[in-house]
Amino acid sequence: MTRTVSETLYEGYAQQFGATGIVAEEKTAFQDLLIFDSAMHGRVLVLDGIIQLTELDEFTYSEMLAHPPIYALDGIEHAMIVGGGDGAVAEEILKHAGVKSVDLVDIDGRVIELSKQHLPKVHNGVFDDPRLHVHAVDAFDFLAAPEAKGRYDLIIADRPDPVGPAEVLFGETFYGRLKDALSDRGIAVFQTGVPIYQPQEFTDALALLGKLFPKTGTYLTVTPTYIGGQMALTWASKQTDLSNAATGAELAERFAKGKVPTRYYTPAVHQAAFALPAFMEELIP
Amino acid sequence: MTRTVSETLYEGYAQQFGATGIVAEEKTAFQDLLIFDSAMHGRVLVLDGIIQLTELDEFTYSEMLAHPPIYALDGIEHAMIVGGGDGAVAEEILKHAGVKSVDLVDIDGRVIELSKQHLPKVHNGVFDDPRLHVHAVDAFDFLAAPEAKGRYDLIIADRPDPVGPAEVLFGETFYGRLKDALSDRGIAVFQTGVPIYQPQEFTDALALLGKLFPKTGTYLTVTPTYIGGQMALTWASKQTDLSNAATGAELAERFAKGKVPTRYYTPAVHQAAFALPAFMEELIP
Repeated sequence: MTRTVSETLYEGYAQQFGATGIVAEEKTAFQDLLIFDSAMHGRVLVLDGIIQLTELDEFTYSEMLAHPPIYALDGIEHAMIVGGGDGAVAEEILKHAGVKSVDLVDIDGRVIELSKQHLPKVHNGVFDDPRLHVHAVDAFDFLAAPEAKGRYDLIIADRPDPVGPAEVLFGETFYGRLKDALSDRGIAVFQTGVPIYQPQEFTDALALLGKLFPKTGTYLTVTPTYIGGQMALTWASKQTDLSNAATGAELAERFAKGKVPTRYYTPAVHQAAFALPAFMEELIP
Repeated sequence: MTRTVSETLYEGYAQQFGATGIVAEEKTAFQDLLIFDSAMHGRVLVLDGIIQLTELDEFTYSEMLAHPPIYALDGIEHAMIVGGGDGAVAEEILKHAGVKSVDLVDIDGRVIELSKQHLPKVHNGVFDDPRLHVHAVDAFDFLAAPEAKGRYDLIIADRPDPVGPAEVLFGETFYGRLKDALSDRGIAVFQTGVPIYQPQEFTDALALLGKLFPKTGTYLTVTPTYIGGQMALTWASKQTDLSNAATGAELAERFAKGKVPTRYYTPAVHQAAFALPAFMEELIP
């Protein structure tokens, strides 16, 4: 074993990986980046000491950010990803033939470059897709451009936790700009933490989104290396109620027709994801 | 911090707790036992280096072992727990007023005694319930007694992983004896690991149970400190199909009538628990 890598997200609780090799390690202009290999999880990306993804389980996260809103809307044309420089979410969105463009907006160009180079099993060549447009700029500014207004059917905030360079992506101004960039039927999905360990992050995000959007709610995925059990994916829209936009039969038909390969998402998993454990229901403001 | 406790379940991957105090530590006749306090998870029980429960999240496990079969059967009379010396599952079962008896059969009397003494927030006084009968004997033998034959509407295998003293609780003879002890409508539920890290344990259990029982399947819960995302709870019965024994409306009515307090289980969570991610469907033999 080359090194022991401990995640530093919580005080007095950590997950620890035995790295069998260090692939990349540098201080970018924005954060500390580490990519290492491990026997159990394959290649792992770490930013500022926090696990961003592992080859073993990233599908549980990226599929559930992308496919529920796309199938609920019966297809989308233009999508934007806030963060997501590793390409995992872009790959899932672009599996859908009807998608015309994806703007991937990650402030840290080095995350994009090093992911492109070292995480081929994660992005699966998506950076060669002509429909993908990569922008190494601040999403906060990108959303304010006039071209962004009302453009997107889907905006996914694949952002890290609300610390460091990502802190600005959790404020009311950010959510307001993001709302302006959504089409009327468009849906935004936000990673909002693991409610059992981060109840306040979850409640705060729901309160803020509820103030700004007529429709909002939460569904769940489970990504083992985002320790803490279910992760809350909170959605918001001006017009679409994601929780009941399509029936089970409609989802099954769209899924069968689309022939998009998945390892986590199924129409049954889609519907089940909206059932929140009682303790999470109680955290909803 | 008094000590750092690392779980030793996997090679090259661990969860690590900062213990703020050691409550009990001894070598019992069967295993190494440790109970410690932690800031984030409260009190934690460890057997042979593997986390058994934490005060913070044990409800996600014990509720989902107990309530789905009980509500699906619209009540039960006699239950047995294989293992479960900490009292967590017994407490959930005995929340139901109609239950007449629970046999808790844990081979390690010290686990029972020390849990009784040091884990009051877990068992919540259930050891004083006259309907609970505690047997510090081998469940493998207990199930073979003539009185056990056809007695139980519910048997929960709250067993550890298939190593050490629990290994015998994963063999065909054990499952056969357990089948004999079930009533015709009775349901058995087995902890069968986290499929993403323990795919073989999951597939093996399903193959063996499918050979012995006419009805079998899997539902899921998510217990953060059983690292690995969803945990598979595999069920088996001679006559009852747990996956569709009751409609959503029936479950909701029974839950409302029973007034059993829960923090994880809801009728919607019950139904959603049967939706397996695509990668787990593929592990079903």
